[in-house]
Amino acid sequence: MATTRFEAKDPELDVLYQQLSEGGLQPLWELKGLLTPEPAVRGVPHRWPGKELRELGARAGDLVPVDRGGDRRVLACCNPGLGGAPYAVSTLWAAVQFLNGHEVAPAHRHTPAALRFIIEGSGVFTLVDGDPLHMGTGDLILTPSWTFHEHHNPTDQPMIWMDVLDLPVVAALDAVFFEEGPSEAADTSVADRSASERWYGAGPGLAPVGGPPLPPHRSPLLAYRWADTDRALTAQLQATGTAHARIRYTDPVRGGDVMPTMRCEIERVRTGARTGTARQTGGRVATVLHGNGRLRVGDQTYDVEPGDIVAIPSWTPWSIEADREIDLFSTSDAPVLEALGLYRELLGADA
Amino acid sequence: MATTRFEAKDPELDVLYQQLSEGGLQPLWELKGLLTPEPAVRGVPHRWPGKELRELGARAGDLVPVDRGGDRRVLACCNPGLGGAPYAVSTLWAAVQFLNGHEVAPAHRHTPAALRFIIEGSGVFTLVDGDPLHMGTGDLILTPSWTFHEHHNPTDQPMIWMDVLDLPVVAALDAVFFEEGPSEAADTSVADRSASERWYGAGPGLAPVGGPPLPPHRSPLLAYRWADTDRALTAQLQATGTAHARIRYTDPVRGGDVMPTMRCEIERVRTGARTGTARQTGGRVATVLHGNGRLRVGDQTYDVEPGDIVAIPSWTPWSIEADREIDLFSTSDAPVLEALGLYRELLGADA
Amino acid sequence: MATTRFEAKDPELDVLYQQLSEGGLQPLWELKGLLTPEPAVRGVPHRWPGKELRELGARAGDLVPVDRGGDRRVLACCNPGLGGAPYAVSTLWAAVQFLNGHEVAPAHRHTPAALRFIIEGSGVFTLVDGDPLHMGTGDLILTPSWTFHEHHNPTDQPMIWMDVLDLPVVAALDAVFFEEGPSEAADTSVADRSASERWYGAGPGLAPVGGPPLPPHRSPLLAYRWADTDRALTAQLQATGTAHARIRYTDPVRGGDVMPTMRCEIERVRTGARTGTARQTGGRVATVLHGNGRLRVGDQTYDVEPGDIVAIPSWTPWSIEADREIDLFSTSDAPVLEALGLYRELLGADA
Amino acid sequence: MATTRFEAKDPELDVLYQQLSEGGLQPLWELKGLLTPEPAVRGVPHRWPGKELRELGARAGDLVPVDRGGDRRVLACCNPGLGGAPYAVSTLWAAVQFLNGHEVAPAHRHTPAALRFIIEGSGVFTLVDGDPLHMGTGDLILTPSWTFHEHHNPTDQPMIWMDVLDLPVVAALDAVFFEEGPSEAADTSVADRSASERWYGAGPGLAPVGGPPLPPHRSPLLAYRWADTDRALTAQLQATGTAHARIRYTDPVRGGDVMPTMRCEIERVRTGARTGTARQTGGRVATVLHGNGRLRVGDQTYDVEPGDIVAIPSWTPWSIEADREIDLFSTSDAPVLEALGLYRELLGADA
Repeated sequence: MATTRFEAKDPELDVLYQQLSEGGLQPLWELKGLLTPEPAVRGVPHRWPGKELRELGARAGDLVPVDRGGDRRVLACCNPGLGGAPYAVSTLWAAVQFLNGHEVAPAHRHTPAALRFIIEGSGVFTLVDGDPLHMGTGDLILTPSWTFHEHHNPTDQPMIWMDVLDLPVVAALDAVFFEEGPSEAADTSVADRSASERWYGAGPGLAPVGGPPLPPHRSPLLAYRWADTDRALTAQLQATGTAHARIRYTDPVRGGDVMPTMRCEIERVRTGARTGTARQTGGRVATVLHGNGRLRVGDQTYDVEPGDIVAIPSWTPWSIEADREIDLFSTSDAPVLEALGLYRELLGADA
Repeated sequence: MATTRFEAKDPELDVLYQQLSEGGLQPLWELKGLLTPEPAVRGVPHRWPGKELRELGARAGDLVPVDRGGDRRVLACCNPGLGGAPYAVSTLWAAVQFLNGHEVAPAHRHTPAALRFIIEGSGVFTLVDGDPLHMGTGDLILTPSWTFHEHHNPTDQPMIWMDVLDLPVVAALDAVFFEEGPSEAADTSVADRSASERWYGAGPGLAPVGGPPLPPHRSPLLAYRWADTDRALTAQLQATGTAHARIRYTDPVRGGDVMPTMRCEIERVRTGARTGTARQTGGRVATVLHGNGRLRVGDQTYDVEPGDIVAIPSWTPWSIEADREIDLFSTSDAPVLEALGLYRELLGADA
Repeated sequence: MATTRFEAKDPELDVLYQQLSEGGLQPLWELKGLLTPEPAVRGVPHRWPGKELRELGARAGDLVPVDRGGDRRVLACCNPGLGGAPYAVSTLWAAVQFLNGHEVAPAHRHTPAALRFIIEGSGVFTLVDGDPLHMGTGDLILTPSWTFHEHHNPTDQPMIWMDVLDLPVVAALDAVFFEEGPSEAADTSVADRSASERWYGAGPGLAPVGGPPLPPHRSPLLAYRWADTDRALTAQLQATGTAHARIRYTDPVRGGDVMPTMRCEIERVRTGARTGTARQTGGRVATVLHGNGRLRVGDQTYDVEPGDIVAIPSWTPWSIEADREIDLFSTSDAPVLEALGLYRELLGADA
Repeated sequence: MATTRFEAKDPELDVLYQQLSEGGLQPLWELKGLLTPEPAVRGVPHRWPGKELRELGARAGDLVPVDRGGDRRVLACCNPGLGGAPYAVSTLWAAVQFLNGHEVAPAHRHTPAALRFIIEGSGVFTLVDGDPLHMGTGDLILTPSWTFHEHHNPTDQPMIWMDVLDLPVVAALDAVFFEEGPSEAADTSVADRSASERWYGAGPGLAPVGGPPLPPHRSPLLAYRWADTDRALTAQLQATGTAHARIRYTDPVRGGDVMPTMRCEIERVRTGARTGTARQTGGRVATVLHGNGRLRVGDQTYDVEPGDIVAIPSWTPWSIEADREIDLFSTSDAPVLEALGLYRELLGADA
């Protein structure tokens, strides 16, 4: 009988296994851990302190020229649970980028999409397909998939900011393309508002007629300014009368996430308040813009302050508690999971 | 032969015609004008002068109580080509509404959707499903299909504004429903911003997470403020460097027109400039917010000034020429024609 | 006081009314019936007996040449409640078309969309943009908006079928365009299946890759064959185990209604069964393909048999009762009402 | 100067690198191969011969009970370029499954979606959420994400088929969930057509009204029968008059791919014909249903026959050449790449 034969030491089975191996086949019944009751999450909760990121960024600014490999002076957050891969969570790259005064990070483009979020500082401007976007505290700047982008610091002061990329997802799909960009003379007299903002950033629900063709798959607005975001958080708290507001950055013309692979959100938690616990499929990288308090992620509790970057792996419960009013920016891969029918969320006590 | 028989006086044919008539049938070959090479447009170009609308509105305010039929003191623009129907063009109702100080137009709702555009003045607030929206110069206020709405004037001064409704379309579809609303005590201390604006009006591309369910078929934002609109027009002129900017009012969360039956747009034409000629299927009602110049509609030329309402019938060429920078607000039924695959547009010399 | 002044005979008011009239304005408070609690439906329930339609169609075939006005020998169903307009309900044209053996109804196109449903007979083929579709009993044939179409009867026998058009809707939107078509030599050796069917009609969920560009706004499949429809009704009855099946004709590639203005459905009611009562906004035209029984429409009850055409006006309750298994084909304007957010439906006892 | 300092042996830099390592950070400039000009494709072209798959499947059927790990007797194709991972290409699992007569593979469900394609044989039926689908030659059977499924072989004969899963994608997103299913008594008297087919499989463009709620994210039709597919391929060849037809399996009600992560297509290449060369981002697994010829993948040429499974990695040029008319079924992750804006395709000489 097959069962007996299987459980016993079986020379015929050894032969079969040998044949399978030679034939480039593996028996499912010998594979473990493929289908787990809950996600076998790669990556662990982790926090990179902002203070350290700023110090090491500055130190790299002293020691390493910007034109080294990749033309970017970037320190990538490596989740200790990912076996050395330079990813903050399994699906997102997060890093700090440091640019000295009068430095230029030259143009290139790649299919992985990037965003920049500025914790503190200003002065650098980024050209995205030639449109110069100045970068200031609290701003979100998009450099979508396959757009040329370059960074210029015409000031005397260095600047540091956070980068988030969907690189792990694009790499997992074997779809990374990269191209050096054309050299452009940098115009140091950059206007206050990019063309993208003039077309799409004047007000809510006011869309231009007859403008440039809308890019497929992503927002035509490339800069989301802190003044607007702050106003939206304040207004939502007024509307609800609660202690927790949450805003999603979206395509202002067609709705939907700013880019097809990354969702950007910011939430404000008032002093003394705590959010409910939530868990979602998909990874998230959060950073503190303002305030102090605690971020609970799985069984970890981090005392957080501005500039801290925190990895929230897939399906890991998390919550925010504010000692001083917190503004928390986060990026997740939720649009990917939603598009593929894989998004799950648990809110509240059972999360 | 049939042809001969037909052309001749034919008693058998007379019998057939009689039978058809008795059977509730009409022969296609006796029907004229059903299928015309170009639209047999009902309605003609027309202009209602703003000065006259203001004077007659005020006179009605003196003589007619607001609680007469319809609970609204409204003067409907009647296109002289529509045989007495109270419509500005065949598919749109346009009117001025006049509310004296301390008057209230009580709550009701109806499936025809309405919008208010304010040429000049402020002080009245409109409750839309209980959300109070103050009305000021240059603002666009929505009262979508089947939302309860009422108007309150807590000031000592009268106010006048323009109403546009899709009533002819809804009536043509035999889909008019109407209901009196609940009496509410009016709160005369209305906040600067409606709940709708607090949730959805803070900035471009900033959508709340966890807000009230989005209404199907229409924008959740009910007030589009002039300050935002003005900024958008200015920014677009900067972006293009041309003399003509055009903005569409849209759903700030999902994109698309503010309501499924009416498209709202505003355009700015700089002093001395003239737009190209355009013609579109579907009717349009335009009103001048600022400036002076000429509106050409078909073979008519109107010298226009603020408050003038102009009917632009379907497939009629039109253009704007500004002597002093013009801001022109217009409403069309373009979303209907687009949804049904019937939208056509000609731009430029051949229009 | 205004109220008193108003109710009394008031010379000042007379002056105002005169001024309004001269100014092309009407006071809302003098307008009645604009906003009614429920739709003030134009059109009434009506039935055109199939027997009569066939007889009068044949008689017209004897007496009237096909090349008379409109190049079509068509008898339009005139709802007695529509004041002489040649429409079956306020939003739909319904008619029978009769073509003698060896006659041709030449090519033209128009923005109103048409469909053909064949109660009995075959032999005629229709060219839609040059694609020849043979017409047989129980088939649904589409001639979408602005497609050239012509009818050829290469046989010795006359044929009659039902036409339904969205003409009232397109006319109400001032969007009727019409054009004579190119003369084509008719190929009398028409293939069994049109190109449209070869590309899109082979099976459910099987879409061609690399075919011709899909037409916007409507199905690329132009013929829905009775054999398929019959199989679908039978299978659905098996799946449910009930006595009532209902199928909607849809775009086989993208889903959704076959055309943006008309919904086509067929339902089968088993012998002895009766459907629930339903009422919907929007008009409907129904015709009996097979079976006998009763159609209740508002307060009318029609004993129906194959070929009968019945007008079901907006918001009028209706139901089907079968003495012998009924197949009922119907066309409604539901896609229009849905697109505009005006569709309402009541099912069951309260309808 | 930084550049000099960097290039020279630099103790300060050593310190920085040490600090970065301790801080869980990696310098971008030391990372190689992250952003490559073209995809650094994981996986290589590979072919698993059908003859060998059948033999080893049968041998496993002799030696290994079905109730071993995973409750499935499955041999997974392991791409030799993937370092031992049991995946056919980097984003797709492909395998053969073997079920002896009177065996049952019990119910479970998982978020990775599966499909079955049957090269030869019949007799087994699969229950998907309780709906029994018989499996026959050339049929495509879906077991979408999170549907319970089980396989029953009530016959005396073994059966083998191909499984394809999106497991690598779901695992890369840390979104694998798995659950054992309820035990059900197998009904060995399975009907010819599943409920899914009765509702949705009767004909093209014929959608039920009032059926069960449509599942989000995937087709409600779970079986695509060879008779339909064959007819569609034949009809398309007639429509085009060429030697190459290609059909995509889609949601028959709403259009779009059958599942959000996997695109299924079948193409027919006539005897003596050769397709153009194509390359696409994303991986593909192809299998030959009928015919003989050559599959060129990158720099490999495989002489193929029925049952062969071939791995076509991302961005690898491929083409088909038929000695005897070939029907080739293939599954790709194209819906994922399209949803994320990462799909690229090159066709023809330059591919």
